[in-house]
Amino acid sequence: MVEVGDPAPELDVEGWIGTPTPLGSLRGRVVLVEAFQMLCAGCLYRGLPQAQRVQRLFPDVAVLGLHTVFEHHEVTGRDALEVFVAELGLPFPVAIDRHDGGPVPVTMRTYGLRGTPSTLVIDRAGRLRGSHLGTLEDLELGSLLGALRAEESPGESAEPGPEEA
Amino acid sequence: MVEVGDPAPELDVEGWIGTPTPLGSLRGRVVLVEAFQMLCAGCLYRGLPQAQRVQRLFPDVAVLGLHTVFEHHEVTGRDALEVFVAELGLPFPVAIDRHDGGPVPVTMRTYGLRGTPSTLVIDRAGRLRGSHLGTLEDLELGSLLGALRAEESPGESAEPGPEEA
Amino acid sequence: MVEVGDPAPELDVEGWIGTPTPLGSLRGRVVLVEAFQMLCAGCLYRGLPQAQRVQRLFPDVAVLGLHTVFEHHEVTGRDALEVFVAELGLPFPVAIDRHDGGPVPVTMRTYGLRGTPSTLVIDRAGRLRGSHLGTLEDLELGSLLGALRAEESPGESAEPGPEEA
Amino acid sequence: MVEVGDPAPELDVEGWIGTPTPLGSLRGRVVLVEAFQMLCAGCLYRGLPQAQRVQRLFPDVAVLGLHTVFEHHEVTGRDALEVFVAELGLPFPVAIDRHDGGPVPVTMRTYGLRGTPSTLVIDRAGRLRGSHLGTLEDLELGSLLGALRAEESPGESAEPGPEEA
Repeated sequence: MVEVGDPAPELDVEGWIGTPTPLGSLRGRVVLVEAFQMLCAGCLYRGLPQAQRVQRLFPDVAVLGLHTVFEHHEVTGRDALEVFVAELGLPFPVAIDRHDGGPVPVTMRTYGLRGTPSTLVIDRAGRLRGSHLGTLEDLELGSLLGALRAEESPGESAEPGPEEA
Repeated sequence: MVEVGDPAPELDVEGWIGTPTPLGSLRGRVVLVEAFQMLCAGCLYRGLPQAQRVQRLFPDVAVLGLHTVFEHHEVTGRDALEVFVAELGLPFPVAIDRHDGGPVPVTMRTYGLRGTPSTLVIDRAGRLRGSHLGTLEDLELGSLLGALRAEESPGESAEPGPEEA
Repeated sequence: MVEVGDPAPELDVEGWIGTPTPLGSLRGRVVLVEAFQMLCAGCLYRGLPQAQRVQRLFPDVAVLGLHTVFEHHEVTGRDALEVFVAELGLPFPVAIDRHDGGPVPVTMRTYGLRGTPSTLVIDRAGRLRGSHLGTLEDLELGSLLGALRAEESPGESAEPGPEEA
Repeated sequence: MVEVGDPAPELDVEGWIGTPTPLGSLRGRVVLVEAFQMLCAGCLYRGLPQAQRVQRLFPDVAVLGLHTVFEHHEVTGRDALEVFVAELGLPFPVAIDRHDGGPVPVTMRTYGLRGTPSTLVIDRAGRLRGSHLGTLEDLELGSLLGALRAEESPGESAEPGPEEA
């Protein structure tokens, strides 16, 4: 299971609502992944609205939804999720976590998520830097994002490196 | 089409989540019917939470949900609605408006509802006294309910009538 | 001490910020009196904003502030209150409760108020119908106001009286 | 006038409510200074509650109030401010900006503040890093604080410096 500090494994998904956006395409950007289920009260009332605020306030941060269904699969399939995303006007791509027959879907298991909503934060170098069950207060999530936004991208350098010295 | 002031027609439904509660069984009580669709943002964020507040604060008022689906039927059927009601913990019975092949379901058409959420308020005598598209502010809905809660039930009398004088 | 149901005694005040508006001039209207102190957190954050919502939503209801200072008199005098009312943009007249040397001012004592904020509600006939310490939820206050707004004014009659029959 | 990036000048104050806490004593910590006036609606409803949230969530950040009175001096003196701080339960030291006869007090002028509320953010090395009129959203302020919280203190070093290489 991936730990905070490790490289963030690619999302293992069945498909996307919106533009497919693998983590590998986001290197150099801070990424917020909001793991949710469409019929989860905490996701509806806290997690998803917060992810939308992040997207609105920080255009440099890449926001993704991750639909990690571990209950009620029969009524929260792709067709229902498409309606949900459209009706709520979710402004970010939503990945659909892949099922392989286990009780929870694959990406959820890989990341060790214990429920929904969960928030994953990934740095510019593609490392997992935060994983929280439930919803942080905006100041707390902002602080975590701010620390990562202030970091250089891999390959960038704010100061002359040794080879240039 | 029923107008405010008219007797409120019975809800014409396919079924109920929770205890079936026809309007006819609620004579003598003020009734709030919250018409909603489970994948409607205004219902999720304003209408249904307000109906829950009414139920919590006014035990004498009968609160009912009415699932008036006029779009996305295929993903908001009874099985999906059951999960929705359970996950959100809706504490009142929910009627499922009946479809007869028209673009909107029967009760929605009878009451002339133009969208969701809509709030219907019915007095102790069974007359429709309020019908609002969107969500009133709590003070406004409280005022409407308060006026009806203060009315006598049919058959009650606070003062001696002429025949007793 | 006045009880709910009794005629509401006139406010006994030292002066007004805004138009002096004795209760006696409001017969025929429902009246909300918000008793507050300018440096009271519950008044700032709950009581006064609620009174402003009432004024905005119910133009037929007369809203008054009543500054009932029982502590910190030295820094909440008329000059400070004038600034407070202007800076917060309070849109209703504010009466200044009269001190006579007792621990609490006269009107506060007459009405038996135990602290701030307190909300008084008076009917069209000038009777005290509600007195609440703290802040009611908007639905609750709305219901109380709605019941009184639905009552006839004294002298009005919705149905022919006996002399006309 | 000090610019963002410059060393933050010491607060030039007449006194403190609570423990006197000059900026010079806070080197090594991130500092938030909330400039306010006690009878300013935006301060009461947005600025001061936000500063309290910062103090609650980030014990490593030093939070200070700065009472920068540029109007209504006569009713917002030290005695009134003491009551205000106690009644609202402000949990941080409050500096009282010094008047020298100009239209705005000295620290306010030095920092070029254009009104209240204003938020100043100072890094571990004592440099001004943010100065905002009005109130940032919590995510935005969190991000700014998070970037500064992630920086090393002067004298600390996360990596071997050249002399150790």
